[in-house]
Amino acid sequence: MNKNSSNIMALAPTTSNRRETVCIFGTGDFGRALGHKMIQSGYPVVFGSRSTQTSSLIPKGAEVLSHTEAAQKAAVIIIAIQRQHYNFLTPLTEILHGKVLVDVSNNLKINEYPESNAEYLAQLVPGAKVVKAFNTVSAWALQSGTLDASRQVFVCGDDMEAKQTVMNIVRALGLTPLDQGSLLAAQEIENYPLQLFPMWKFPILLSFGLAAFFFFYCLIRNVIYPYVYENKDFSFFIAISIPNRICPILALVLLALVYLPGVLAAIIQLYRGTKYRRFPDWLDKWMLCRKQLGLVALAFASLHVLYTLVIPIRSFVRWRTSSQIISQVLNNKTEPLNTTNAWLSDSYLALGILGFFLFVLLGITSLPSVSNNVNWREFRFVQSKLGYLTLILCTAHTLVYGGKRFLSSSSYRWYLPNAYMLSLVVPCMVLVVKFVLIFPCLDKPLTRIRQGWERNPQYSE
Amino acid sequence: MNKNSSNIMALAPTTSNRRETVCIFGTGDFGRALGHKMIQSGYPVVFGSRSTQTSSLIPKGAEVLSHTEAAQKAAVIIIAIQRQHYNFLTPLTEILHGKVLVDVSNNLKINEYPESNAEYLAQLVPGAKVVKAFNTVSAWALQSGTLDASRQVFVCGDDMEAKQTVMNIVRALGLTPLDQGSLLAAQEIENYPLQLFPMWKFPILLSFGLAAFFFFYCLIRNVIYPYVYENKDFSFFIAISIPNRICPILALVLLALVYLPGVLAAIIQLYRGTKYRRFPDWLDKWMLCRKQLGLVALAFASLHVLYTLVIPIRSFVRWRTSSQIISQVLNNKTEPLNTTNAWLSDSYLALGILGFFLFVLLGITSLPSVSNNVNWREFRFVQSKLGYLTLILCTAHTLVYGGKRFLSSSSYRWYLPNAYMLSLVVPCMVLVVKFVLIFPCLDKPLTRIRQGWERNPQYSE
Amino acid sequence: MNKNSSNIMALAPTTSNRRETVCIFGTGDFGRALGHKMIQSGYPVVFGSRSTQTSSLIPKGAEVLSHTEAAQKAAVIIIAIQRQHYNFLTPLTEILHGKVLVDVSNNLKINEYPESNAEYLAQLVPGAKVVKAFNTVSAWALQSGTLDASRQVFVCGDDMEAKQTVMNIVRALGLTPLDQGSLLAAQEIENYPLQLFPMWKFPILLSFGLAAFFFFYCLIRNVIYPYVYENKDFSFFIAISIPNRICPILALVLLALVYLPGVLAAIIQLYRGTKYRRFPDWLDKWMLCRKQLGLVALAFASLHVLYTLVIPIRSFVRWRTSSQIISQVLNNKTEPLNTTNAWLSDSYLALGILGFFLFVLLGITSLPSVSNNVNWREFRFVQSKLGYLTLILCTAHTLVYGGKRFLSSSSYRWYLPNAYMLSLVVPCMVLVVKFVLIFPCLDKPLTRIRQGWERNPQYSE
Repeated sequence: MNKNSSNIMALAPTTSNRRETVCIFGTGDFGRALGHKMIQSGYPVVFGSRSTQTSSLIPKGAEVLSHTEAAQKAAVIIIAIQRQHYNFLTPLTEILHGKVLVDVSNNLKINEYPESNAEYLAQLVPGAKVVKAFNTVSAWALQSGTLDASRQVFVCGDDMEAKQTVMNIVRALGLTPLDQGSLLAAQEIENYPLQLFPMWKFPILLSFGLAAFFFFYCLIRNVIYPYVYENKDFSFFIAISIPNRICPILALVLLALVYLPGVLAAIIQLYRGTKYRRFPDWLDKWMLCRKQLGLVALAFASLHVLYTLVIPIRSFVRWRTSSQIISQVLNNKTEPLNTTNAWLSDSYLALGILGFFLFVLLGITSLPSVSNNVNWREFRFVQSKLGYLTLILCTAHTLVYGGKRFLSSSSYRWYLPNAYMLSLVVPCMVLVVKFVLIFPCLDKPLTRIRQGWERNPQYSE
Repeated sequence: MNKNSSNIMALAPTTSNRRETVCIFGTGDFGRALGHKMIQSGYPVVFGSRSTQTSSLIPKGAEVLSHTEAAQKAAVIIIAIQRQHYNFLTPLTEILHGKVLVDVSNNLKINEYPESNAEYLAQLVPGAKVVKAFNTVSAWALQSGTLDASRQVFVCGDDMEAKQTVMNIVRALGLTPLDQGSLLAAQEIENYPLQLFPMWKFPILLSFGLAAFFFFYCLIRNVIYPYVYENKDFSFFIAISIPNRICPILALVLLALVYLPGVLAAIIQLYRGTKYRRFPDWLDKWMLCRKQLGLVALAFASLHVLYTLVIPIRSFVRWRTSSQIISQVLNNKTEPLNTTNAWLSDSYLALGILGFFLFVLLGITSLPSVSNNVNWREFRFVQSKLGYLTLILCTAHTLVYGGKRFLSSSSYRWYLPNAYMLSLVVPCMVLVVKFVLIFPCLDKPLTRIRQGWERNPQYSE
Repeated sequence: MNKNSSNIMALAPTTSNRRETVCIFGTGDFGRALGHKMIQSGYPVVFGSRSTQTSSLIPKGAEVLSHTEAAQKAAVIIIAIQRQHYNFLTPLTEILHGKVLVDVSNNLKINEYPESNAEYLAQLVPGAKVVKAFNTVSAWALQSGTLDASRQVFVCGDDMEAKQTVMNIVRALGLTPLDQGSLLAAQEIENYPLQLFPMWKFPILLSFGLAAFFFFYCLIRNVIYPYVYENKDFSFFIAISIPNRICPILALVLLALVYLPGVLAAIIQLYRGTKYRRFPDWLDKWMLCRKQLGLVALAFASLHVLYTLVIPIRSFVRWRTSSQIISQVLNNKTEPLNTTNAWLSDSYLALGILGFFLFVLLGITSLPSVSNNVNWREFRFVQSKLGYLTLILCTAHTLVYGGKRFLSSSSYRWYLPNAYMLSLVVPCMVLVVKFVLIFPCLDKPLTRIRQGWERNPQYSE
């Protein structure tokens, strides 16, 4: 922007009409793809290359010149070359003085070098204004025009004007520039395309660990125990019955773990009497991955729903139903309707349905396009009020499912309680503490602390 | 933008390189959070405060000065102070003359004061250019960087240049400014963060009202009637059976209510012979909450699906099935396959599945990120054509479900018809009227009216 | 932007404060709606019209003048007139010289005229700077403020400065301008609002064709065959049983067709030894509609899930279950649990559940707002790794479903194999070829080719 307006003054107003020439160093895959896109968007493009021979792969309309000649033609030079070859730029330092150098490079490993490629470039060519950009865009996406994943281009640099110039180019290519601040951010920007769901790592590892534990727990109770004592082969439980025990347990535990850090934070704040001291590091990290924890919990809940709904189709279940009926007939014994059982069965199903329904609602509101359309109060309402309601319903669903079995000794095999009992520990704890925190004698000071009040203020305005 | 370019001329071109100092009045929670974020984004920040003592809470790199000194250092002053304390600004009127004052305040209640805080500020400091902004952003979100809910910052103000300056700051902080026009919009912007789903209020209240009505209706027919006449305790129907009657009824009625206002509007337009007279107020409001009505209907439809799919798992249903089989065996009576029943059962299930499938499709296309990616014709096609198809399928599903029971007197208890019959009234009405409106003799004039034609034009171009 | 800054110089800096007058030619529906919106956003608006009589429909605050007078008042003139009447502009050529003319027109058919309306306008008024914009916005949406569908305004034009001016107006109205390049793009922009899901046409036609084929195939095998040989009326299979055979078959075949072009492309690249030669046209088109193919497959998979879950509720299935039990009782024969059957039944259900779960996950990540938030590596991971895992699980689900029936001759009726066998051909082919391509002797050269290496390079840098 400012770039343009200073040009208006320096040259003639009419030249603001044309887009300025952009120079690209390097005729590799990415350089050519970027050049192609720029020509489409109306930029004159010159390539700087060791050999100035034009090949059929160079986009039509672009010139290929020596590095020196090409650099002289443009104020913006895109360095589409790998970091290992950057030192060829040292002799060009004088020509590059005052130019905008755009570093588009990526590495193969996270934190491969001590300093980012862009900072390294800035050291090599001290007089130039280095801007980091375009490293998150793939050559293939530029060529094919299918920019489904990440239209976002992270831009950083120490020179405000140079950054603006680059951001204008990004916008002209139909992409969205995101200003990430000074060149110090380059390291993070270079790591970004190498990341693979970093926020999801902890929730997924945790759930795999818990799943493995509960799998073996259920295997012992439900397959090995009957095999040892009753010589019955229930190995096929591995396919559906055991997963359908693991999934609801994980869903409930993970959902409780979403709300546990908030409760812990409240206790810490109440104890400290201030909100201005940092939480321990583990709590901070935990709070930042709550959304991911919740979505993993939702995934397990959905699997639980599917596993439950196929129950009547299962060959084993159909066999069991018909044998029960046949044995009733043969014993000439008809059972009357047990209203208590009907109540228990229907209410645990109803609680599960409502809990799952609210859970899906929470999941939908965490979609970026939905959460962008609600205000802060609405977002808090959904994620906190509805979230706790979901936790209450799901915990109640599990408690009613247990029903009368809690105290019956027959449900203990090898002194192991039913797996669902273990799953109730964390959610009940969270709900009890939350319930205590609602009492006015605790809620009032907490609200004041969160509004900035301090019990022992360390400063006075 | 313009701000910058005038500075270029006034001062030296090189200063455009640095971000301009921003002053923040008030060192409270929000002021500090905003200051912190601004320093991160490269803005020099000075705080104006009653006491100039720097506390540990003031973000690093910021200066704390007296209000007068701080104001002199910057062209943009953010007033992070509550409205009640605004009058301390009156003595500063001269220093603030020509400055951009950004009002970031919120109230505790909707329409708490006769005029908005920003307008009040503009009256207090007549020479300043007041801009309303940042009130939708929470201090917590600014500090933690988790700006999930609303990255959008509504901006309004009477001075175009001042507004542009503030919008540039908003963009630099990584947020999205939305220009809402003149300072008259401030009232609405200040109410925005206090709202709790205002568009959803009517649909949710309506559905709760209908749900309560149908709950008691079904309670009388299905629980109290058998208890009185047959002394049977079916109270457990409250958990699943009755909700599974209420949900489909509400889904169907609400879906029909989505299409009813469009049909009414067509009749009104045909009757008036013009589209240029406003609809009655209630119709306008109704039309604006059609999306919400439809989504609430979809929620009930989803619950209906879940309630229906758990039927075979219910303890009561399993008991009923086995008693039926046992009684057949004991009576030595085997029923042959009734093909008509098989047809009815299968086709109402198939209609329900297809209707629900289309309903979910409608829901998905109403997600903001999906509807932004379709053109107007496609959006209309989905919301109108597919919407009516959904309504037809769901109505047919209910009609076939009724099957032969419509005229059988045994389905009337205490002269009350089955609840699903009541639910058919509105959808059938909408479909019949819509069918009539499709006839060319009505469709042609309607299309012409909607393209701007008038039967009795009141003006001639 | 540049526009504004040059005005700053020409006039006085303070005028930059007000928005510039915009002129609209034509007082029709769209012209008035646009004028209304512009006045709301702070633009002074003049209408140019044949008759200068102000009607009650003209938005308040707008002036109505003759075309000549109106044009002189503004630098930007919006031509809200149909193409057929454009020639009235010829006498105004001199007044319009140097002005920005915004063509907002649409046609009734795709490619109705040899050249786009905007290019036609540019020919008629050679001295003006023609910009195409606003044609994707509907008058109704502008008036009612419900811009759910497409806030995006495509803008194209040969004059960069004129385009910037128009894009600023678009932004000021709260819409999102998208620069589409030179006026050559106008044809495409004019066709855009007339399109009806062009990318979906092929996948939907293909699936309808396949659905029709499999419908008649299953009709012959499952309804006509038993009617002819056993005189049984299974016509009600048309409602659920046959759709529930067609849906999983289509889901599996279409999912395989999503991954087939990638496999073909790899073979072509390996054979040619370069990635720089274009693929055949059909392959290119196929690759561009993979997302749509996948979503149609997901739709069929969802229908399959719903059809499967209602099985136990079906009247026919309940009749069949009870007759089987009764016949067992009457024959005094109780079957023991068949563990192999339990294993087969449970594992094909479990495979189906996991496959569907991953399929839904793929669907969610293809939502625009989700895919915008992942980087390229994550997007590739989900769409390729998870996609192949989904294909493997779904194919395994079908294979285990077949179980022991593959070789049993009783499953061939009129020499026709079961329909699910046909559905396995494409997915097995894709999986086998993909498996072969993973071997290092093929994977290594392929990776090098995709990074830009060529077996027979045609040029040297």
